[in-house]
Amino acid sequence: MLTTPGPGAQSVVEFEQIARARLPGEVWDFVAGGSGAETTLAANRAALDRVALVPRAMGDLSGRHTGTDLFGVRAAMPAAIAPIAYQRLVHPDGELALARAAKRAGIPFTVSTMSSTPLEQVAEVGGTTWFQLYPLRDREQSRDLVRRAEAAGCAALMVTVDVPWMARRLRDVRNEFTVPAHVSAANFTDSSAAAGARQAVVGDSAVAAHTAATFAAFTWPDLTELRRAASIPLIVKGILDPRDAAKAISLGADAVVVSNHGGRQLDGAIASADAVTAVREAVGDRGTVLFDSGIRSGLDIMRALTLGADAVLIGRPALWGLAADGEAGADRVLGLFHQEFAEALGLAGCPDPAAARTLTIWRGSV
Amino acid sequence: MLTTPGPGAQSVVEFEQIARARLPGEVWDFVAGGSGAETTLAANRAALDRVALVPRAMGDLSGRHTGTDLFGVRAAMPAAIAPIAYQRLVHPDGELALARAAKRAGIPFTVSTMSSTPLEQVAEVGGTTWFQLYPLRDREQSRDLVRRAEAAGCAALMVTVDVPWMARRLRDVRNEFTVPAHVSAANFTDSSAAAGARQAVVGDSAVAAHTAATFAAFTWPDLTELRRAASIPLIVKGILDPRDAAKAISLGADAVVVSNHGGRQLDGAIASADAVTAVREAVGDRGTVLFDSGIRSGLDIMRALTLGADAVLIGRPALWGLAADGEAGADRVLGLFHQEFAEALGLAGCPDPAAARTLTIWRGSV
Amino acid sequence: MLTTPGPGAQSVVEFEQIARARLPGEVWDFVAGGSGAETTLAANRAALDRVALVPRAMGDLSGRHTGTDLFGVRAAMPAAIAPIAYQRLVHPDGELALARAAKRAGIPFTVSTMSSTPLEQVAEVGGTTWFQLYPLRDREQSRDLVRRAEAAGCAALMVTVDVPWMARRLRDVRNEFTVPAHVSAANFTDSSAAAGARQAVVGDSAVAAHTAATFAAFTWPDLTELRRAASIPLIVKGILDPRDAAKAISLGADAVVVSNHGGRQLDGAIASADAVTAVREAVGDRGTVLFDSGIRSGLDIMRALTLGADAVLIGRPALWGLAADGEAGADRVLGLFHQEFAEALGLAGCPDPAAARTLTIWRGSV
Amino acid sequence: MLTTPGPGAQSVVEFEQIARARLPGEVWDFVAGGSGAETTLAANRAALDRVALVPRAMGDLSGRHTGTDLFGVRAAMPAAIAPIAYQRLVHPDGELALARAAKRAGIPFTVSTMSSTPLEQVAEVGGTTWFQLYPLRDREQSRDLVRRAEAAGCAALMVTVDVPWMARRLRDVRNEFTVPAHVSAANFTDSSAAAGARQAVVGDSAVAAHTAATFAAFTWPDLTELRRAASIPLIVKGILDPRDAAKAISLGADAVVVSNHGGRQLDGAIASADAVTAVREAVGDRGTVLFDSGIRSGLDIMRALTLGADAVLIGRPALWGLAADGEAGADRVLGLFHQEFAEALGLAGCPDPAAARTLTIWRGSV
Ligand SMILES: Cc1cc2nc3c(=O)[nH]c(=O)nc-3n(C[C@H](O)[C@H](O)[C@H](O)COP(=O)(O)O)c2cc1C
Ligand SMILES: Cc1cc2nc3c(=O)[nH]c(=O)nc-3n(C[C@H](O)[C@H](O)[C@H](O)COP(=O)(O)O)c2cc1C
Ligand SMILES: Cc1cc2nc3c(=O)[nH]c(=O)nc-3n(C[C@H](O)[C@H](O)[C@H](O)COP(=O)(O)O)c2cc1C
Ligand SMILES: Cc1cc2nc3c(=O)[nH]c(=O)nc-3n(C[C@H](O)[C@H](O)[C@H](O)COP(=O)(O)O)c2cc1C
Repeated sequence: MLTTPGPGAQSVVEFEQIARARLPGEVWDFVAGGSGAETTLAANRAALDRVALVPRAMGDLSGRHTGTDLFGVRAAMPAAIAPIAYQRLVHPDGELALARAAKRAGIPFTVSTMSSTPLEQVAEVGGTTWFQLYPLRDREQSRDLVRRAEAAGCAALMVTVDVPWMARRLRDVRNEFTVPAHVSAANFTDSSAAAGARQAVVGDSAVAAHTAATFAAFTWPDLTELRRAASIPLIVKGILDPRDAAKAISLGADAVVVSNHGGRQLDGAIASADAVTAVREAVGDRGTVLFDSGIRSGLDIMRALTLGADAVLIGRPALWGLAADGEAGADRVLGLFHQEFAEALGLAGCPDPAAARTLTIWRGSV
Repeated sequence: MLTTPGPGAQSVVEFEQIARARLPGEVWDFVAGGSGAETTLAANRAALDRVALVPRAMGDLSGRHTGTDLFGVRAAMPAAIAPIAYQRLVHPDGELALARAAKRAGIPFTVSTMSSTPLEQVAEVGGTTWFQLYPLRDREQSRDLVRRAEAAGCAALMVTVDVPWMARRLRDVRNEFTVPAHVSAANFTDSSAAAGARQAVVGDSAVAAHTAATFAAFTWPDLTELRRAASIPLIVKGILDPRDAAKAISLGADAVVVSNHGGRQLDGAIASADAVTAVREAVGDRGTVLFDSGIRSGLDIMRALTLGADAVLIGRPALWGLAADGEAGADRVLGLFHQEFAEALGLAGCPDPAAARTLTIWRGSV
Repeated sequence: MLTTPGPGAQSVVEFEQIARARLPGEVWDFVAGGSGAETTLAANRAALDRVALVPRAMGDLSGRHTGTDLFGVRAAMPAAIAPIAYQRLVHPDGELALARAAKRAGIPFTVSTMSSTPLEQVAEVGGTTWFQLYPLRDREQSRDLVRRAEAAGCAALMVTVDVPWMARRLRDVRNEFTVPAHVSAANFTDSSAAAGARQAVVGDSAVAAHTAATFAAFTWPDLTELRRAASIPLIVKGILDPRDAAKAISLGADAVVVSNHGGRQLDGAIASADAVTAVREAVGDRGTVLFDSGIRSGLDIMRALTLGADAVLIGRPALWGLAADGEAGADRVLGLFHQEFAEALGLAGCPDPAAARTLTIWRGSV
Repeated sequence: MLTTPGPGAQSVVEFEQIARARLPGEVWDFVAGGSGAETTLAANRAALDRVALVPRAMGDLSGRHTGTDLFGVRAAMPAAIAPIAYQRLVHPDGELALARAAKRAGIPFTVSTMSSTPLEQVAEVGGTTWFQLYPLRDREQSRDLVRRAEAAGCAALMVTVDVPWMARRLRDVRNEFTVPAHVSAANFTDSSAAAGARQAVVGDSAVAAHTAATFAAFTWPDLTELRRAASIPLIVKGILDPRDAAKAISLGADAVVVSNHGGRQLDGAIASADAVTAVREAVGDRGTVLFDSGIRSGLDIMRALTLGADAVLIGRPALWGLAADGEAGADRVLGLFHQEFAEALGLAGCPDPAAARTLTIWRGSV
């Protein structure tokens, strides 16, 4: 069994087993698990696996590159690190290590509301930082987070709209999962709020319980208000219906993330790969379409682009790298993503990411 | 292996193994089995599993609830307990326990013609009780049952039209299954009729043999007559073809149940989840469309509603709860159904059950 | 493991394992095997399994029956025994036993050109006998067989057009399969012809080698000639393309058998269940459409009818019964087919076989 | 387990295990492997397996044959040996043995740029020889190869356009695969070039590293130039998009090979069997459509023709035969292909390969 990270692993997916071997069982479950029967978790992969590409031949690839502009900032490839809570759960260096790896890889890092490192410290790493907002019951606290993110120089604000509360993730419920003592919600200045997910709850996940107590519903008027309040680009994360995508853009959002939260919210939700094309059609060129849930290789990035996305968010695989070997592990994972994507792009005959949109798709060969 | 019910089980489906461990093999087979090669039994699940939902975002869920009116009576969720024969087979408290659990959960309980507790005793539990009629060869006996049901205050009459005789359920045939001495068809006042399914039959299921001797064919004219005879809402159970649904409604039925009897009658019949949408289209808003066969989670209730149903009947899972721990087990199963359904409804962005009908469906991601 | 036939087996398919346990390995392989990679053999089942039916409710079934007219003769159900060579391979009573069982079951028995009992002896059994012709290189011998069949009172002539030579059935080739000394091609008066498939061939099946030496191609002009020569109803067996079906009928054939020879000729051929509907459309009501390849239960008969067939041929399952217990085993298999079919027909709401054609089909639930 | 080749194996696919048992693990991996997650490698088979044919009956097959003209030269069946590098890896007789077997089988042999025997020696074998060109960075060297091929009497020039560099084949990368000392790129006169793939590379495949250093991108203008430079028929290998096929033909190519390089280049590319029909439609009768990637039996050749190809290239299976028993093993494999194809063609009712195009296809029975 593969247990040493680094040069031994030759593809992103190999890091899953490495991470699993390194992490305590309940932390692994927290990372890997989905909600309910994990139907959507499985569907995310099945839907991507069914997407085959028709490559083009003999095009001029002499100037080929993988770079993409995301909200006016150049990224080395059409990808960013997804917002992921409590990264110190899997490695002591947590968000800082992953943000550094993202910077080195030339892609944005999204710091979560539930970061285990204060957003300001993450922003100091100096790459492109995006801030992800979970709307809180305490609206003033929400507004404060947005102001802090802008002040820290975050390049975009990503509001997550698919977590009015955390769905029942049965692994965590069964494990009565609690965030350990050395990990806290570091963006919360109030120490009891910061400690929230550390209070054990009989027969429930402490994270879910804390979320239920803290998070707020977020409605269309809230979006309008947030749009007005924020001066940086606004990304709405957790959209699957094209009608919602069009409305978000028309209310001033710059982007949507087609996402089912990695199969962690509504179990039974459509796979992102089945949803993204209709969203792209609804958005047209009036906004940016990001994609997450299931991305595990450079080929998957290609698939998402061909299906209509402008770029993807990398979720669990980034954590696998971090868990495997801290910053070096994250470097390796992001390096493999870049290598795999560059190869897939070139072999498909595309000089740049935008060209992926012109490829034909075939569904269902496997 | 899970053998203790209650707080340990975190989803409805876990009760299946608990019940299996508790029940004698042949009782388990009677509950779990289907007819023939159990093709339809398997198809019921496969068809539901293929239904993915496209959730909506940022709607106003402040007044969200799971309540539904069923024939003018409020139910706490769009569900009722399906008619299930001989419930004392799986637990000494039988129908009374399950009816009490249903009452506590705020949903109707359907008492079967083949109940092992007299319908009047069940009705005394005091929740909403529906009576399920198996048309009998002895037409007077049939009429008598209807009169008793009305007299006992049953809120609806459900006539089952897919059992002219019991299909060959090979598990029962092989087990030469017999209802044990302490269980009888308690609605039958004639003691030999009540004992019918207790007479062992070589090479056959005693239940099937008894059914063959007792049940009658039921035709369209019989429906008209029954409609005239009954003063309470009339539900026709066991409809899969939209033409039959439309005709039943036009002859005065208030509702149909899209059902293949849980894969226990025509093996090879279409899965309910594949049939319900066309039935809904045929019925329009002229009647209520109920759904059963394969419902195993709150997500499945959501799926059925999104496909076009107004509410579902809960079949085997209710028995699992009853078998696992009597009334407490049934409470837990119904509680989990409610919890799972409320979560799925909310995470799909629906303020109430009716809103599920506006969601888009995607088939085939898994 | 099931090894005793008779009352123990409760469905047709259980006889497969019983027969397998009774037969020498190479005889089993000869019966069970298909050609090439056995792709079509598997597809026959997969295609039938995908066919779900939408049953009708509350129709008048008071006069229900399973009888069907086949070329003016009443059959107890829409089925006949398929032509099967060398039946004494699996039981000493061979064709006589199976013909007697067919007579008792009230369905036609088709005697093969390669029968191990002379066709006249089979015809003497006295049920409805059909004769199956393999066109032979020796055209006079072919004509003689037809004359003998008519003289013996055969009620129909079935010409098999999908065996210009026997396809490579790798099991037989590997087994260097030879028909044993006590079995001969009893319709052949010339003793060396009768012994043909008994000559061992290194690295090949003796049956195939014999076939290659004896059988003739059969073309459209041959069909016209045969139509003229024969005075009894003419059935063309081995049709899959609707264009061929229409042409055969227009040249005077009374029926076609939609068949891929049980997956024993062209490996890679379409499953019969995928082919029959288009054939029925091409034939309309100008001829009879029979179906074989994969029929294993009464439900399968229903499926074939609903897909457009008028009746089916029962192939391997009849041999399983014969192998299991001679005439009694065959009786049991045919009895189960009848019981299963009658139940499926009734539970689907059909008063008679013809009504199956009005049911709606759903594909792909499993 | 089968380990002896020759008469024991009764179908092409059996040679896979024989070869595997004979070859060193890393050579086996080099032959069998695909790129990335081997998605396309698997899809090639899945897509072919789903193709069922509707055979025709009673046609006149008296003059039936399997011959085909390929660029004005008669081939015994619609097939040629695909270009395969370094054949001495699997057997000391390498290209010469396979070329002799191809000659005996009456089909063209394609000698690869990366042949381990000089193209002139292969051409001397005397059957139909095609030369496959990998465009090289050193353009003069490329031109020289073309001139040598023409001078040696090669009957066609096949330019491979899907290998700007070798894709990451993870088996080879993990094995740090190196071509052994006794095998060289024998077409290269410069001895260091010839030795290229023998230099071990830490953490990479030596073949891939050598390719990356040597091969050139090949664009549409390069095709025009090559067309002008070569006087023999020009085949473009590695086309999947119909637009590229049409353009290649309109620029003067005589043929395209619909190919994903046996799943060895873009992982995630469409299966050839899913791509070929659209390519045939785009090409019409203005050029020849060849097919490779996944052909494993005579039935597969039939499938490819029915889908629209004029002929196929045989890849790995030819190597299996060579590995199993040198020239004799290759003879046996090609003999089986011929036997299987002739049988499939005849049983489908086709007098010749061209007739396969008139068959109807059914997808998805298995
Ligand atoms: C351990 C974990 C923590 C997460 N935390 C957050 C979060 O704090 N905020 C958020 O918007 N999404 C969060 N997500 C969801 C991710 O942003 C992303 O949508 C998801 O991981 C994508 O699916 P994938 O992991 O299958 O690629 C989290 C996901 C995981 C696995
Ligand atoms: C053990 C058992 C007994 C049943 N008894 C009756 C009955 O008496 N009357 C009736 O109409 N349906 C009866 N049914 C069918 C149910 O009402 C319902 O249609 C079916 O259970 C739904 O499928 P599910 O169990 O897969 O959810 C019975 C089902 C089971 C499993
Ligand atoms: C052992 C065996 C022998 C057969 N012999 C004949 C035959 O002599 N003539 C013929 O037309 N078909 C013959 N068939 C084909 C059957 O008539 C029929 O088409 C086939 O068995 C149907 O498929 P099934 O067995 O899957 O139901 C034979 C089939 C088997 C299995
Ligand atoms: C070991 C090996 C070496 C190959 N070398 C070449 C080559 O030198 N040039 C080329 O154009 N294709 C090469 N190919 C690809 C084949 O020409 C062909 O496209 C492929 O093998 C077809 O897929 P199949 O093996 O699944 O039939 C090679 C394939 C294999 C397996």
